[in-house]
Amino acid sequence: MTKFIFDNLDDELFRTYAFWSAILVVKMLAITQWTSEMRGRKQAFHSIEDTSYKSATLQPKFDDPDVERVRRAHRNDLENILPFFLVAFLYLLTGPNPTIAANLIRVAALARICHSVVYAVYVLPQPARFLSFAAMLLANGYMAASCVFYYCF
Amino acid sequence: MTKFIFDNLDDELFRTYAFWSAILVVKMLAITQWTSEMRGRKQAFHSIEDTSYKSATLQPKFDDPDVERVRRAHRNDLENILPFFLVAFLYLLTGPNPTIAANLIRVAALARICHSVVYAVYVLPQPARFLSFAAMLLANGYMAASCVFYYCF
Amino acid sequence: MTKFIFDNLDDELFRTYAFWSAILVVKMLAITQWTSEMRGRKQAFHSIEDTSYKSATLQPKFDDPDVERVRRAHRNDLENILPFFLVAFLYLLTGPNPTIAANLIRVAALARICHSVVYAVYVLPQPARFLSFAAMLLANGYMAASCVFYYCF
Repeated sequence: MTKFIFDNLDDELFRTYAFWSAILVVKMLAITQWTSEMRGRKQAFHSIEDTSYKSATLQPKFDDPDVERVRRAHRNDLENILPFFLVAFLYLLTGPNPTIAANLIRVAALARICHSVVYAVYVLPQPARFLSFAAMLLANGYMAASCVFYYCF
Repeated sequence: MTKFIFDNLDDELFRTYAFWSAILVVKMLAITQWTSEMRGRKQAFHSIEDTSYKSATLQPKFDDPDVERVRRAHRNDLENILPFFLVAFLYLLTGPNPTIAANLIRVAALARICHSVVYAVYVLPQPARFLSFAAMLLANGYMAASCVFYYCF
Repeated sequence: MTKFIFDNLDDELFRTYAFWSAILVVKMLAITQWTSEMRGRKQAFHSIEDTSYKSATLQPKFDDPDVERVRRAHRNDLENILPFFLVAFLYLLTGPNPTIAANLIRVAALARICHSVVYAVYVLPQPARFLSFAAMLLANGYMAASCVFYYCF
């Protein structure tokens, strides 16, 4: 009986998904910490309660290039990793080929770690960031398209 | 026996949810591409490695109105669509009326496609964006309130 | 038989998770409304179709400190609450101690409500925001690390 869609879920594959998703959450927590670190180094805080806590004369600063770079990397994570969490799970429920699915997840997650490093830690010339960005984008596109066709019928 | 909450999940309804959620992920990927396209057209890049890849004299640009408009539309997606993914799923587990639930999901998803179009592609005067924005906001509010009452007991 | 990972899910614990997650979605909807309210009060809108709807002479305004503060609080929600939704669910599937898990979820959610209040409604001096921020950050870190170790094997 397969009336219940969750019966499609391969346990081994779900563990791969859960492991790499947890790694990506750790990566996102790391970039949060990296933002704080960078704000401290450059003394660039956005809120008056932060500057006044540090010193009476420090002013809020919104245009520090290094802090804004880390924030762009973080925002890019929100735009790509968060939809991945959902679409990868829905994709697993379509009963995909386990080898393809597991490797899609691994490649997308590893590429995202590279993305954060080349965007916000050791800045490399393009196309380093472009390639690491494209990997999860293509994986998300493939998984989303698979879901649209599968759930359509 | 209904000890397990996932037994509440209507298979047909879950497929509707999964289909429209995948459509919304495709929509979010499309706006990512639209940002790149707009950055290229207006030659407005945020990072030095992007401008130097294009030409030796191009400077980063943060205030292009068209690029910033697309980014606002994208951020609004993050604020509304990503919580929808969770709250719609939790709502399905409360065992809602299938017709109401399926139409809530469809209306919210279609409204969001309109929202992106009128915000970032063909800009229309208000209240076009307001109405398309309000549809998912109200759906999210209704589903969240239903979940709060259901899971409270 | 525990071949299926969802069999690990404690029903009572899932309800606690679903209840507090729904509360956090309500909180995020509230901050969306609070942004609109603040934009109206300060007459600070980003888009030309909003300013022209209000009056023929109003110009878009991007640097109102009160509006930008609410937007920072909202963005911080996206960075922390949205990953929480996933990682808390994956953590419940690892079969944690129910008392610890339920209290982690409650403390993290309540701290986030405080975070929004002290960031965007009644601004308090630091470390008020820092402490309310740190609670969910630590909970997310603990749950993510638990998941990495559990799903690794």
